Amino acid sequence: MIHYLGQPGSYSFLAALKYFKNGNNLAGSDSFYKIFSKLKKQKSDYGIIPVENSLTGSITQNYDLLMKEDIFIVGEILLKIKHHLLVNRDTISNLNNLLYCYTHSESLKQCHDFFLLNKNIKPVFAEDSASAAILLRKNRSNIYCAIASRQAAEINKLKMLDIKVQNDDNNYTRFAVISRRPNKNGNKASIIFSVVHEPGSLLKALKPYAEAGLNLTKIESRPIIGKPWEYIFIVDFILQKDNAQINNVLKKMKKSTNYLKLLGLYDPGKIYES
Amino acid sequence: MIHYLGQPGSYSFLAALKYFKNGNNLAGSDSFYKIFSKLKKQKSDYGIIPVENSLTGSITQNYDLLMKEDIFIVGEILLKIKHHLLVNRDTISNLNNLLYCYTHSESLKQCHDFFLLNKNIKPVFAEDSASAAILLRKNRSNIYCAIASRQAAEINKLKMLDIKVQNDDNNYTRFAVISRRPNKNGNKASIIFSVVHEPGSLLKALKPYAEAGLNLTKIESRPIIGKPWEYIFIVDFILQKDNAQINNVLKKMKKSTNYLKLLGLYDPGKIYES
Repeated sequence: MIHYLGQPGSYSFLAALKYFKNGNNLAGSDSFYKIFSKLKKQKSDYGIIPVENSLTGSITQNYDLLMKEDIFIVGEILLKIKHHLLVNRDTISNLNNLLYCYTHSESLKQCHDFFLLNKNIKPVFAEDSASAAILLRKNRSNIYCAIASRQAAEINKLKMLDIKVQNDDNNYTRFAVISRRPNKNGNKASIIFSVVHEPGSLLKALKPYAEAGLNLTKIESRPIIGKPWEYIFIVDFILQKDNAQINNVLKKMKKSTNYLKLLGLYDPGKIYES
Repeated sequence: MIHYLGQPGSYSFLAALKYFKNGNNLAGSDSFYKIFSKLKKQKSDYGIIPVENSLTGSITQNYDLLMKEDIFIVGEILLKIKHHLLVNRDTISNLNNLLYCYTHSESLKQCHDFFLLNKNIKPVFAEDSASAAILLRKNRSNIYCAIASRQAAEINKLKMLDIKVQNDDNNYTRFAVISRRPNKNGNKASIIFSVVHEPGSLLKALKPYAEAGLNLTKIESRPIIGKPWEYIFIVDFILQKDNAQINNVLKKMKKSTNYLKLLGLYDPGKIYES
């Protein structure tokens, strides 16, 4: 079994479908926490979770769960997010008649300009984008719309309006495939660590990467507030040689870190259209 | 005039109050975009915007605006965020009777566990946390609650329930004070830049910092999807010497960056309770 966030037609569902190439073993979940919990209890083999969006940044909640739980990244996939404005099939395609819009909070952020321009339309919370489409289908009202994927529109037999609803088309989400067992190989690595408490600790922790000539593809610091110069770091990088390389780097890093977890080795993900 | 997000009692309002020490010239705004726009049109002297939260990460939308507009960071302040669950004064203090909760989308994320535990309570979007309190006051219903600050409860004469509503107490937001005119001095600097398109570019751009022995307090990369090895970086650091130091670093950096903006020089912010 493979767990994703939401209902069929959610972006996590679409990412799972592209990654695993079939939808037979997919099951929806209503929180990231539950996706991790299902894995821990051996009720699923894989989970798929968003870790970063090109417009809104890292999904810190999932990094916190990866840090806390004995769960590892074993794959990744990038999905271009294309939000559509959906209405029931018999709704007249006129924005002025709409008063409410079902939307996930992340979609709301990514479509914020639309709501600023159309003050008559109030956002109504949905657990995920596909749930927004389901709520609209069940509600049947003509003063409601929803923000969701093309696939969620098709699954729920809703009409897509020809209206630009998202702020920016450069909207990609990077999903991580997670599992109880880490891969032994892979060209890409993700690590999370915290550094010792002293000025300059942030750059010092990166020295082993520079020395090994590794190519970083992501770096992010999160402050531990109230503890100056203490940070949690997330770093992704590409391995050029064999796995011995990563062991060397991690060994060097352990000297200047308080906490260090190899989140996983995996092959760099491909980009798909949603 | 100083513009903040939301209504009196919002966390941006509280941050502005702590920073400017009086509330005489404060005016609410309903979007970050408008705060920048008011500054550009000389309709305000300062704006106050959240740039980072300890639980949910960077507020990328504001970094995008700082990158695009001729507006600069001139100060910072850290505010401990303490969400409360509010009800109308005559509402019985029993969670089971509540069906709806007005909440800002960021507060929703920071209180997600509460909604998972109390499935009977559905979130209803509000533009900011103080607006959530205002909606509750105006609605007067006993099946509604709201998530907002203690001050928003006091201003709107609402009752605070003795219930832990936020996921984690380590909840701090860093606000930037912004203006049309950059400071000439300050011990802290924020810069944003993109690097040239080649493997290793990420670490190369950081070399001038390492060489100058500067202490980074934040580093974040955001990928430009579809352009491998191209990134936007946000870096904060502490200056140890005089301003000549930053000019040297920026001069060196220009060789390996496509785009570079000094977002501002300012004094490191203090931490306040909300």
